[in-house]
Amino acid sequence: MIVNNLCKYNIDCLSNKKLSLNLYQNEIFILMENFNFYSPTEFVFGRDRENESGKYVRKYGGSKVLLHYGSNSAKRSGLLDRVKKSLEAENVEYVELGGVQPNPHDSLVYKGIEVCRKENVNFILAIGGGSAIDSAKAIAMGVPYDGDFWDFYSGKSPKEALPIGTVLTIAAAGSEGSGDSVITKEEGMLKRGAGGNCLRPKFSVLNPQLTTTLPAYQTACGATDIMAHIFERYFTNTREVEVTDRLCEALLLTMIKETPRVIADPTNYDARANIMWAGMVAHNNIVGVGREQDWNSHGIEHELSALYDCAHGAGLAVIMPAWMEYVYRHDVLRFAQMATRVWGCEMNFSNPAVTAREGIKRFRRFLHDIGMPTNFEELGAKESDIPYLVKTFGLGEGETGGFVHLKSEDIENIYRLAVKSKLA
Amino acid sequence: MIVNNLCKYNIDCLSNKKLSLNLYQNEIFILMENFNFYSPTEFVFGRDRENESGKYVRKYGGSKVLLHYGSNSAKRSGLLDRVKKSLEAENVEYVELGGVQPNPHDSLVYKGIEVCRKENVNFILAIGGGSAIDSAKAIAMGVPYDGDFWDFYSGKSPKEALPIGTVLTIAAAGSEGSGDSVITKEEGMLKRGAGGNCLRPKFSVLNPQLTTTLPAYQTACGATDIMAHIFERYFTNTREVEVTDRLCEALLLTMIKETPRVIADPTNYDARANIMWAGMVAHNNIVGVGREQDWNSHGIEHELSALYDCAHGAGLAVIMPAWMEYVYRHDVLRFAQMATRVWGCEMNFSNPAVTAREGIKRFRRFLHDIGMPTNFEELGAKESDIPYLVKTFGLGEGETGGFVHLKSEDIENIYRLAVKSKLA
Repeated sequence: MIVNNLCKYNIDCLSNKKLSLNLYQNEIFILMENFNFYSPTEFVFGRDRENESGKYVRKYGGSKVLLHYGSNSAKRSGLLDRVKKSLEAENVEYVELGGVQPNPHDSLVYKGIEVCRKENVNFILAIGGGSAIDSAKAIAMGVPYDGDFWDFYSGKSPKEALPIGTVLTIAAAGSEGSGDSVITKEEGMLKRGAGGNCLRPKFSVLNPQLTTTLPAYQTACGATDIMAHIFERYFTNTREVEVTDRLCEALLLTMIKETPRVIADPTNYDARANIMWAGMVAHNNIVGVGREQDWNSHGIEHELSALYDCAHGAGLAVIMPAWMEYVYRHDVLRFAQMATRVWGCEMNFSNPAVTAREGIKRFRRFLHDIGMPTNFEELGAKESDIPYLVKTFGLGEGETGGFVHLKSEDIENIYRLAVKSKLA
Repeated sequence: MIVNNLCKYNIDCLSNKKLSLNLYQNEIFILMENFNFYSPTEFVFGRDRENESGKYVRKYGGSKVLLHYGSNSAKRSGLLDRVKKSLEAENVEYVELGGVQPNPHDSLVYKGIEVCRKENVNFILAIGGGSAIDSAKAIAMGVPYDGDFWDFYSGKSPKEALPIGTVLTIAAAGSEGSGDSVITKEEGMLKRGAGGNCLRPKFSVLNPQLTTTLPAYQTACGATDIMAHIFERYFTNTREVEVTDRLCEALLLTMIKETPRVIADPTNYDARANIMWAGMVAHNNIVGVGREQDWNSHGIEHELSALYDCAHGAGLAVIMPAWMEYVYRHDVLRFAQMATRVWGCEMNFSNPAVTAREGIKRFRRFLHDIGMPTNFEELGAKESDIPYLVKTFGLGEGETGGFVHLKSEDIENIYRLAVKSKLA
């Protein structure tokens, strides 16, 4: 771990190469990075909006649709029927492919590609959460591609994809507004990501009513995932991006207010609505532009959910605070900023590290209070698997970048911190 | 003015019809409104990015461009030449139409429509601030339309428009990311708005370097306009839209930090960058979704800039705090929220109105400190014109909706408050 432990308050121990002058001076000139921001999805938000699915499929050129979904809950609740009815009203044909699992697998993607080619599908409509949407994105890339779709999950950039739409049923992954997709390869249980603007949905229906039947545990997992998406943009070595900092904090404050309300009363529409919208904003990258980001917690977690098939959010609840504990000394004042602005801690001006640690403690306490596991045991993970987890993480002798650069040894240390995590 | 003065803290005097139960109860169930959010513009942000204009024009289908700009500053600075060079590098043809004024006039729009038709232009590239962009949008609607383009500024919805791109030189209007346009009709000096998704730019180049030569006064006018765009979304009768509240506050906090820095040092790239991005986010409506908005301050100001040709931001600096003073009793706690969360006031729990007023006072003080006028005299407006201003506002015996419904009498009262405004 590249951390300079010599500095007292860490304001001088940044590893960012863009630092162009002595940080002890009053002004710090680190450039906000150039960026492109492109989020062309039309968001169709509110009560009963799934009944307009057919209209939006037509608007974006679909005439034959693959309806892609997961469990039977979309069938049982009547959602699938309502969507079908709206397609029929617009004379849109459809074929169905259900059975998407949490941590969606490559085998169903291959099947979906086959169905789409055979049936001449020209639009994919995902109904569900991040799993159904990510699986739909993988299929969408695979259909026009000659090779193996897994290439896109091994570093290749997708150039084209079938257009997709989504009807979201879980606020969590943010896949409804992102160009990202995560798929698990059954052989070796490898969980890997792909991304590209061609994967951004044409439209996404966000009806908070559809989430009110979600059990408390899954709701909390979703909220944790949303918060992680924000934190992974918040912890950065890029200075002077106040607008992005503030937007991150705005979403975190929203999640801190709304999540306990929805755990207490799952039918609270307004709280569900705030969380659902925050989940999209957290991940279409408007709160991450102009700065270096750090996605190592997501990566470290992916090994857990791939091995144990646990919920991604639950894995993050265990890993993210452990990662924070491990790296906070790299930039104590940034963690103190989180603690004061997000968690309402009083700033300890004589020892900011106290404030920084208090912020991390409150985050872990928050996760516990909404019903999340906060260590390996509560998650059902085993300490003895750590060497395997580190190996599949796949750094070898290399390192992974971000807020703090990590080597295999650091990944192992973070898993070990997560084993032992205790509420203070 | 529909305000119930009987209530002590105003929590019970909402006029919103969606209120479904007694506000004295603990929980308030007002529905977050259904909405569509669609912001398909590709934002191309950072240093030197104008040199990619040609590439993006091509990407979005342009082969013959109208270059539309204002004063000579784009010529003098070399910006126009750089943009032309980038078009030439992509073999994009262009014709030019300069001369856009602040508060852009209809006469140039007619001319632009004629030029585009004659020259078979298929893409409009606006170089400048809100005026050049709004004028480009008006031309873009007018070209494919059989009738008078002014129809779209008199209530008609546009169905199609030529695609446009922008190279932004002033952070203010937010037109680079919005589907809105404001034009002044020379006959009667009527300033009116039009809007529609077909007006959203295909791409917008935001290079903060281009704004570093902007004089302090214009910079401050832009900052005021940006803050007004946020406040006009912030003051709402819709409850329970925490996420939108927090995002509004995030942008306001950013503006409060960055604006004085840029007034003190116009070449501060990072402060310019934060303001430029905040200006876009403030007005593509991501901070306004799901709630009733109130655009009366903008409307009341438009009469001032139409009559005196003053900067829109300067007019807002005079009107917006006066509007706040006039309406704050309608919802004292919302103004107290602004005062505490945005202006850092201590909450006065025994008399929240004191906090509310303190927030408004700090806003006016802030505007004064960045060099803005805060009353009619400083703006160059005349009290004796008020009857004319009220008449051209055009309510007659009717009223205008929003946070507080206003009649002609209220508009007059707000102008009169603005005449007399003094810093405390």
